[in-house]
Amino acid sequence: MPPQPPRDFAGLFERVSPHMAALDRFMRTEVEHFEPEIRGMAAYCLDTSGKRLRPTMVFVSGWQGEGVVSDDLVRAAGVVEMVHLATLVHDDIMDRAEIRRNRRTAAREFGPDAAVLLGDALFSQALHVASQFPTTEVCRLVSESTRKVCSGEIMQTLRRRDINISLADYRRMIDLKTAELFRVSCFLGARLSGHDLEFARAADRFGHHLGIAYQIYDDLADFVGEEQRIGKTLGTDLATGKLTLPLMLLLESVSPEERAAIIASLRGGQPLDLAASRQRMQEMGIGAGIVRAIDEELAISAAALKPHAERAPVALMLQLGEMLKAQVASLQAAPVMR
Amino acid sequence: MPPQPPRDFAGLFERVSPHMAALDRFMRTEVEHFEPEIRGMAAYCLDTSGKRLRPTMVFVSGWQGEGVVSDDLVRAAGVVEMVHLATLVHDDIMDRAEIRRNRRTAAREFGPDAAVLLGDALFSQALHVASQFPTTEVCRLVSESTRKVCSGEIMQTLRRRDINISLADYRRMIDLKTAELFRVSCFLGARLSGHDLEFARAADRFGHHLGIAYQIYDDLADFVGEEQRIGKTLGTDLATGKLTLPLMLLLESVSPEERAAIIASLRGGQPLDLAASRQRMQEMGIGAGIVRAIDEELAISAAALKPHAERAPVALMLQLGEMLKAQVASLQAAPVMR
Repeated sequence: MPPQPPRDFAGLFERVSPHMAALDRFMRTEVEHFEPEIRGMAAYCLDTSGKRLRPTMVFVSGWQGEGVVSDDLVRAAGVVEMVHLATLVHDDIMDRAEIRRNRRTAAREFGPDAAVLLGDALFSQALHVASQFPTTEVCRLVSESTRKVCSGEIMQTLRRRDINISLADYRRMIDLKTAELFRVSCFLGARLSGHDLEFARAADRFGHHLGIAYQIYDDLADFVGEEQRIGKTLGTDLATGKLTLPLMLLLESVSPEERAAIIASLRGGQPLDLAASRQRMQEMGIGAGIVRAIDEELAISAAALKPHAERAPVALMLQLGEMLKAQVASLQAAPVMR
Repeated sequence: MPPQPPRDFAGLFERVSPHMAALDRFMRTEVEHFEPEIRGMAAYCLDTSGKRLRPTMVFVSGWQGEGVVSDDLVRAAGVVEMVHLATLVHDDIMDRAEIRRNRRTAAREFGPDAAVLLGDALFSQALHVASQFPTTEVCRLVSESTRKVCSGEIMQTLRRRDINISLADYRRMIDLKTAELFRVSCFLGARLSGHDLEFARAADRFGHHLGIAYQIYDDLADFVGEEQRIGKTLGTDLATGKLTLPLMLLLESVSPEERAAIIASLRGGQPLDLAASRQRMQEMGIGAGIVRAIDEELAISAAALKPHAERAPVALMLQLGEMLKAQVASLQAAPVMR
């Protein structure tokens, strides 16, 4: 029976809520597999109020009908979420972040040294869960993906305050650090729910471009979002000298003099003023270009599913893209985007 | 044909030298699998002049006769060595170590932030190689082992300057942080060279106790060794407040007053003087107790192989234990041990 098209996005999350409940139970059981001495720390990292985007992608790409929750999908969702949470533990060390999702980061709670090792333990356990599938496929895909995510993060870390980043470089970095795990989540969802390789590859392509769109949106939100709405400290890319699409497009649009001033400010370590940068973005009409880039990725993402319109997961997968579009639209309501 | 008993330890290393040459080639090929942007960094970490103890254990436990080098053993050796090198990259961040094996640590060379991620990429690639075996067994064993190694390191990191560590706690920490990967190296060597589970379990037990013996030796060397001979900075455990067996035994032997003074010094963060601690160790005859602990572990280790004396790997495996005994004996030549 093909799924009924959900009416709204709340509907989408409602439909995967039995899956998320199963994932909660799974994660609580996973905590028990850590050594007793570090179990409390593992629980702290795994018990988050995160958005669980990657598990949602696994569940949606492997949709098998209302209320059908397969153990394989739950386990795969657990694997990708644990990998993601491990990267957050390590990211927060590097960003010297104190707070994430309204509580102390692991680095702040347990110290950066313990957090390095704790992230490692989470990575290891994620791969251990991946090795519990009958074949090596999940291990192979997830370990390669994890390496790529880390490589993308290394590139971004090493190129802070580097203004010679090209659009291709930026694209390459977000491809690795974000789109990679989105891609694998969708591939695994499709594959583990019994779809053929043809559909799994389409889901892979869908996830890849959705991931790129998502990261561009995230970078835009860091510039123009309202903190309360987004739920985290914004302007951090600017503060840490991370060159993302908004600033890259601004650099391309302004006069050579203004460009030189921005570059000097970035290089000198003197952080750019968020309000002033926002105003320049508005004046130069940068927002529209970024939204266009997101829309392009979402279009490629949706097109990948076109030959498979009759498959059970497709309607919900397209909803994921629509949801991101709606989030972008709500950012567009900000004055700087008009 | 059973292997001829090697005459000396140089003989042991000579016999695995074709294996090590194959491992070198394998590691160089592995470097090519990293993203081009981080390949140089990966090469820096993988191209070390390390002792390659864990690969040696894989090769020796899977010994199939003179000059027989199996691809499976080389791959498994690559996996355990990459996991080990990844933990070193992260350890050196925590210890703020600048030099390892006569060159800059990755943390010093690329910065601690990049080193966190680089270690992650090495872990991921190790598991990716593990997933290239036909079954999930290697992935499962290595990922679990890696988690245990990290857990042991976390415990030791969190308990720096904690004088309430019992002998059982110490044993538990070295079990996890060192013996675990030794154990898995021997198990995999035996298993992947076609031995039955019975021998693989004996090899596992051999590796486990050899690992404990090795770590106690390493902790002793940190106290009483000569830097030139050992090839790294010594006295670091004392300097960083890591409570290891030598200091634990010293604390047990001295008068309550002296004990209180040592504890105050540890707690106050004021490092203990290495020369003075060495002298007290000599006066209290601590060395003999430590050597006894090592000998006990080596005896259990050798006993595990007794029922399998006719198997090809056993003579060489026992040589590994003898080699460690000889290293301990050369430490005993130090004045402090007499």
